[in-house]
Amino acid sequence: MYIVDLNCDMGESFGSYKIGRDEEIMKYVTSANIACGFHAGDPSIMKKTVRLAIENGVRIGAHPGLPDLSGFGRRPMEISSEEAYDMVIYQIGALKGFVEAEGGTLQHVKPHGALFNMAAKQRPLANAIAKAVYDLDPSLVLFGLAGSQLIEAGQQHGLKTASEVFSDRTYQEDGSLTSRREPNALITDHEQAVHQVIRMVKEKKVTAVQNVDIDINAQTICIHGDGERAVDFAKYITHALKSSNIELRSIGEFIGHKNI
Amino acid sequence: MYIVDLNCDMGESFGSYKIGRDEEIMKYVTSANIACGFHAGDPSIMKKTVRLAIENGVRIGAHPGLPDLSGFGRRPMEISSEEAYDMVIYQIGALKGFVEAEGGTLQHVKPHGALFNMAAKQRPLANAIAKAVYDLDPSLVLFGLAGSQLIEAGQQHGLKTASEVFSDRTYQEDGSLTSRREPNALITDHEQAVHQVIRMVKEKKVTAVQNVDIDINAQTICIHGDGERAVDFAKYITHALKSSNIELRSIGEFIGHKNI
Amino acid sequence: MYIVDLNCDMGESFGSYKIGRDEEIMKYVTSANIACGFHAGDPSIMKKTVRLAIENGVRIGAHPGLPDLSGFGRRPMEISSEEAYDMVIYQIGALKGFVEAEGGTLQHVKPHGALFNMAAKQRPLANAIAKAVYDLDPSLVLFGLAGSQLIEAGQQHGLKTASEVFSDRTYQEDGSLTSRREPNALITDHEQAVHQVIRMVKEKKVTAVQNVDIDINAQTICIHGDGERAVDFAKYITHALKSSNIELRSIGEFIGHKNI
Amino acid sequence: MYIVDLNCDMGESFGSYKIGRDEEIMKYVTSANIACGFHAGDPSIMKKTVRLAIENGVRIGAHPGLPDLSGFGRRPMEISSEEAYDMVIYQIGALKGFVEAEGGTLQHVKPHGALFNMAAKQRPLANAIAKAVYDLDPSLVLFGLAGSQLIEAGQQHGLKTASEVFSDRTYQEDGSLTSRREPNALITDHEQAVHQVIRMVKEKKVTAVQNVDIDINAQTICIHGDGERAVDFAKYITHALKSSNIELRSIGEFIGHKNI
Repeated sequence: MYIVDLNCDMGESFGSYKIGRDEEIMKYVTSANIACGFHAGDPSIMKKTVRLAIENGVRIGAHPGLPDLSGFGRRPMEISSEEAYDMVIYQIGALKGFVEAEGGTLQHVKPHGALFNMAAKQRPLANAIAKAVYDLDPSLVLFGLAGSQLIEAGQQHGLKTASEVFSDRTYQEDGSLTSRREPNALITDHEQAVHQVIRMVKEKKVTAVQNVDIDINAQTICIHGDGERAVDFAKYITHALKSSNIELRSIGEFIGHKNI
Repeated sequence: MYIVDLNCDMGESFGSYKIGRDEEIMKYVTSANIACGFHAGDPSIMKKTVRLAIENGVRIGAHPGLPDLSGFGRRPMEISSEEAYDMVIYQIGALKGFVEAEGGTLQHVKPHGALFNMAAKQRPLANAIAKAVYDLDPSLVLFGLAGSQLIEAGQQHGLKTASEVFSDRTYQEDGSLTSRREPNALITDHEQAVHQVIRMVKEKKVTAVQNVDIDINAQTICIHGDGERAVDFAKYITHALKSSNIELRSIGEFIGHKNI
Repeated sequence: MYIVDLNCDMGESFGSYKIGRDEEIMKYVTSANIACGFHAGDPSIMKKTVRLAIENGVRIGAHPGLPDLSGFGRRPMEISSEEAYDMVIYQIGALKGFVEAEGGTLQHVKPHGALFNMAAKQRPLANAIAKAVYDLDPSLVLFGLAGSQLIEAGQQHGLKTASEVFSDRTYQEDGSLTSRREPNALITDHEQAVHQVIRMVKEKKVTAVQNVDIDINAQTICIHGDGERAVDFAKYITHALKSSNIELRSIGEFIGHKNI
Repeated sequence: MYIVDLNCDMGESFGSYKIGRDEEIMKYVTSANIACGFHAGDPSIMKKTVRLAIENGVRIGAHPGLPDLSGFGRRPMEISSEEAYDMVIYQIGALKGFVEAEGGTLQHVKPHGALFNMAAKQRPLANAIAKAVYDLDPSLVLFGLAGSQLIEAGQQHGLKTASEVFSDRTYQEDGSLTSRREPNALITDHEQAVHQVIRMVKEKKVTAVQNVDIDINAQTICIHGDGERAVDFAKYITHALKSSNIELRSIGEFIGHKNI
């Protein structure tokens, strides 16, 4: 028997602007990463998304990003480790406010976009993020790219971590994601995407674009909530995982258990 | 024996921009209202100000404002009650994050500028703010203009409230502050300002500009932290209060006690 | 023979956020009001929208709004006349930069949302906006609600003005638009909307919700570019106007001509 | 006889926040680089600073920066060349609006902070900026670090360029500025700073920190307007330059002249 968490970025709308099909996707995932107002989201969207997650029994994570709404947090910025610490505390705190006002509990933190990618490779930045999460609430689970500096930093700081894999992205032989600028970065075929995921969960292996198998730890799978086929894929992957004897559960329910 | 709290708006710098002489003023006040990034402040300033308050044994409050950095939160905006609720939760949550990361406890919430003034008169807005504070943490003390709708709303929602008076502002006979647009809005003479405050604390009376005495409840006194004479006045008023047998203590230490 | 301008708000997307079906709507209108980055739009969207207008032979106007992206410029803010002047100069200048870089000429200015509504009623604000437009370029046409203070202010300041009517909104007997908060604010039936417009153009009359006819000057008609039926309605109204012997032309081509 | 331009960054205040002693410094410089609202400045500050420059007979330049108010435009961001083009057009356009509304003429463009530094080394970015300036107004002078990619890009695009030197910064042997992170980046001694500048103007040489002389072209000298000693230094350097037979004139008055 295998267990895995299924997460999705949520609450990425802003004011009158809508991104993502949160209401439909929320039915399929087990953990929701909710934007905190820096790269996306605003207080009203955050409250609604927190409520939506609670109604659907989905566990909630903060999804802090760089202060770059017009770039959706995807443009790398040179920030100091201290600035990273500060902006992560701020954003987690803000989301935690909504979660607690609704009587819920925050489960995890997953940095967004360029902050996620930078923290995968830059250890001082990863340390600052891990320390911010720990200082705010040491019971939070830190999400990071499987095999990344962020996962190592989280463990070093005494946090529970969740190694994340992507269903629709290809991997390099060093375990990093193929850059979105490359033509072969995305896996658009649903069957192929699901096949990659199931192998990552069961065999802890993935085939890099260099055609070699590498080891990978898949504790949580990221799916995307925008795009026309997002809901179809959510439906497809949850069904496929269950059919393959892989149980879907929120990370907080099984992380730290033996053999996982 | 009389007891009163002395509060000041703090952490109003932003990035490279500096406002206020926080380090000096912090030595005199008992409660600090820390800006939360909407009308002033940013994550790094918030952390530094929280640390400064803790080092000085000053209790911390969130100071949420309208989303108007260029107007410093002083321009009234027509926001819905729901938007007010949401932006208050967001900002308190963000500040609470820093306070808890530093091992401290949030004491109070005081709306800023136009939000403070609007909440003094508009009951639905006052209710939304009071509900946000209560939902997030019912042990928080809500600061509001003495005699205002915000104080009533806080009490109705089950919150402890702190009736605030201003040392350097004149009052109208209905208990409201004279608008800053009026020539006689400000009291610039330090002796006169302190005399007004002491009478408010001891006699629970203030003379309105219409030259009539009105009743007023003075549980916390607001002083200002910017301007050339701010530090001098802080020194002056704290000395004068103590000399008049008025003890300065953080509101959380005495609010709810009998006879207060 | 009748002539009228047909305008639509355009370029209201922001970063990764998309609002409006500009590419399709641009085929039908004669004037485009392009957002300038305060309530909507960003530099990249502005450039693309300017190019799209030029490619389609559509004349360009600046569409300045309040600095309130999260409220889409629809929340009234108390700004001073001087602040209004400054923010209008800034936004027109920014858009003019793109228009001139593309070798085009700016035709008009139309305030957005709450700024438009406030300027319809508050003469000092209307004067500040009219003066900003005149100071920047006295050949620009100022759009305002037909019969509003903004139209009068524009004329007083020596500007050409365009009296605007709305196809899908109902009118009060004082010539103002019915507030969007009222249930009967919008005309959703396409036939009824077009009938109202044709009568405004030909007879210079409209029936207010109080069931009385009022005089109205229709030099430019506003249609909306978002919503599922926007493109259908654009197609429908342009066909209906032409069939009714009403020619569609950019306001700059006929404003100031005799009998108009 | 030697001629040089003396420039200073101006208009860097924002809302209630004040940076720089513009009113005093404006008496000494010949060209003012005015912030355009992205990294500093706002519409009201821009108008006041434009007026102040015109009153003092100082020529005006746009000073566009990265969209990062909290980082004052000093944090490098990975933006595309197209984004750079767009944000430069936007900001120049906005400032040009104020200049033209006041009856003036824009003289030059100088990128700010991280954008300036990135454009000194990254040719595609430099090209995008040069193209934006040229497309908007080919008569504008482009300021760039002496010997940088930005100067070359400006010349290639057909712009007049102004090679800028810094009075208070040390140089590397490749002609770049010593990073502010290095202890020897700044020259704090006024006499030494002025000596370096005079030699750059007269001998076209500067001694790099590696203790070798390098060639340098000094058409405009940058001084700083904030800090306690800024006004003193402005006074000191202008007096010293004149005493050394170096005339101070706005770059637009002499650029392109023979032998310069």
